[in-house]
Amino acid sequence: MTHYSGRRARLAELLPAHDVEALLVTSAVNVRYLTGLSSSNAAVLVRADGSALLATDNRYIDKTGGLDVPAVEASDVAARLAAPGVGIEAADMSVATFNRLGGLVPLEPLVERLRAVKDEDELELLRTACAISDQAFADVCGAIRPGVTERDVARLLEARMIELGADRPAFDTIVAAGENGAVPHHAPTGRQLRAGDLVTVDFGANYHGYHADMTRTVSIGEPATWQREIYELVAEAQRCGREALAPGAEAWAVDAAARSVIKEAGHGDHFRHGLGHGVGLAIHEEPFLGPSRTGRLEDRVPITVEPGIYLPGRGGVRIEDTLVTREGGPELLTKTSKELLAL
Amino acid sequence: MTHYSGRRARLAELLPAHDVEALLVTSAVNVRYLTGLSSSNAAVLVRADGSALLATDNRYIDKTGGLDVPAVEASDVAARLAAPGVGIEAADMSVATFNRLGGLVPLEPLVERLRAVKDEDELELLRTACAISDQAFADVCGAIRPGVTERDVARLLEARMIELGADRPAFDTIVAAGENGAVPHHAPTGRQLRAGDLVTVDFGANYHGYHADMTRTVSIGEPATWQREIYELVAEAQRCGREALAPGAEAWAVDAAARSVIKEAGHGDHFRHGLGHGVGLAIHEEPFLGPSRTGRLEDRVPITVEPGIYLPGRGGVRIEDTLVTREGGPELLTKTSKELLAL
Repeated sequence: MTHYSGRRARLAELLPAHDVEALLVTSAVNVRYLTGLSSSNAAVLVRADGSALLATDNRYIDKTGGLDVPAVEASDVAARLAAPGVGIEAADMSVATFNRLGGLVPLEPLVERLRAVKDEDELELLRTACAISDQAFADVCGAIRPGVTERDVARLLEARMIELGADRPAFDTIVAAGENGAVPHHAPTGRQLRAGDLVTVDFGANYHGYHADMTRTVSIGEPATWQREIYELVAEAQRCGREALAPGAEAWAVDAAARSVIKEAGHGDHFRHGLGHGVGLAIHEEPFLGPSRTGRLEDRVPITVEPGIYLPGRGGVRIEDTLVTREGGPELLTKTSKELLAL
Repeated sequence: MTHYSGRRARLAELLPAHDVEALLVTSAVNVRYLTGLSSSNAAVLVRADGSALLATDNRYIDKTGGLDVPAVEASDVAARLAAPGVGIEAADMSVATFNRLGGLVPLEPLVERLRAVKDEDELELLRTACAISDQAFADVCGAIRPGVTERDVARLLEARMIELGADRPAFDTIVAAGENGAVPHHAPTGRQLRAGDLVTVDFGANYHGYHADMTRTVSIGEPATWQREIYELVAEAQRCGREALAPGAEAWAVDAAARSVIKEAGHGDHFRHGLGHGVGLAIHEEPFLGPSRTGRLEDRVPITVEPGIYLPGRGGVRIEDTLVTREGGPELLTKTSKELLAL
């Protein structure tokens, strides 16, 4: 049994509880997970008996020969596989498609639940994605200096990751210098780096569909006392978050382990996003770590731990690793040092 | 009136005919088109009186200060703006969101219709995206030689585009050597280029959200007679397609102008995709050129012309430019020569 047929078999087992004979999977990421086909126009019908049928258009049909699931060619892939009473991914299918096809049964995300726990092949791809990201950061560090722009740093990192074997950046690289560091999701601009800046760099490689995600904050020149203080605080929070990662841990409790460090130092209002998120075929996927997130972590779940402190108008710090939950303690995939680097 | 408020005003004029007081725009590309905000989680409500309200989450809310539309912060952006009787983009909103919010009115694509015709600022961004693509191809041509892999060529092109100022590749670069050239949408592999190969390279730069799209087929060493014959045929078809591009022309007729050249030479079955597509904030957008496409082209519509001949097991040729429809003849944005290059 291949990975793919095993995944379809696990999905098929979930269908009777939802009163459907088959699920029409239309999410591109989920189709890839279940069949191996990476296509912008494909769907797979998985039946409760474990059988399946894949549909894609003539641009991709030639790539289905090596897959372990029978495939048919169709331009309207959902219509080719739909039938009254078939379940659909309600979070993915558009209202227009749903109304046009008729008779389908909206279901909650099911494949996403399966995707959270990775098999060893997936973990190996994530290790490679993280290793490429680490190496690119090491190679580009020398170019992070006064006069270089945020956009320059982003481009150098992205080009280096591709040279090192990445298929593409896992997401749009964030480079945030000085006051821009107070914006967690800042897009790189022409702002030049200057002595006295903290610079937050959030990036990662996509390798064979799997997404690495890491953040480091560096100092241009010797850091000021306030900069060193918030850096050490974030580093301590990040360490506590990593140590709380374990199979069985509740999602909100892992978040709290890190957040309490920042709160107790009086910076609770300066950390307004969740602690982390699963990574895999999507850059943000189940499970999510946050104050109101429920559910327990399972074994072999790759996830980020990324606390931050953001001081409006002044700057910010974020430190992020990708790890994997394991019995006996998490496996750290992001190997770059978390000492404050003065460049 | 800014570009953005002008676009919203044109959208507002369409709403009375659809019996709604307001449209909830959730497509990320359409939100960007109407407000300037590039966000993975944003929505904008445009009312029939021309007023509007933007919602996005705390990662993006700081970027809305410079926009010309009032903004509110919300994690569930559609819920923040939805109300009974409001129209929604049925092709974008998921069944899950639609059912959760309730009382909404599914509408056909409206913003997409506006987006087809570009203003001069958009055309200038597309010119830059195409110029970066041309330059990257010129710079990388020297590296297209025997022993280099398809994947090497793709990476060199993508890295060079970023060095030249692209924000990212406009789509996953296609490099298809020899027999792989028979697959229109081939993904680059480790196959090495060899003397005697035709190599099809389909790529482009994304610049400030706007997508360039170009394809050239080159020969490794002197081309064989059959290779030169299909190349000249595709080049002639492409010329006829370009010359048929004019405001007022019917979409199927432009396709036919190119396709008839290939058909009359007996290769009709070897050209199975449409002739081209609009480009802009999306890589594939209205209008589309194909045998069964209806509608007439308007003025100032950027569009690709990309006929091909694909011979299973042997190889293929595709030649693609991005152009803009203009009174008096199309403006050619892709400047790279279409002479058959022997490398």
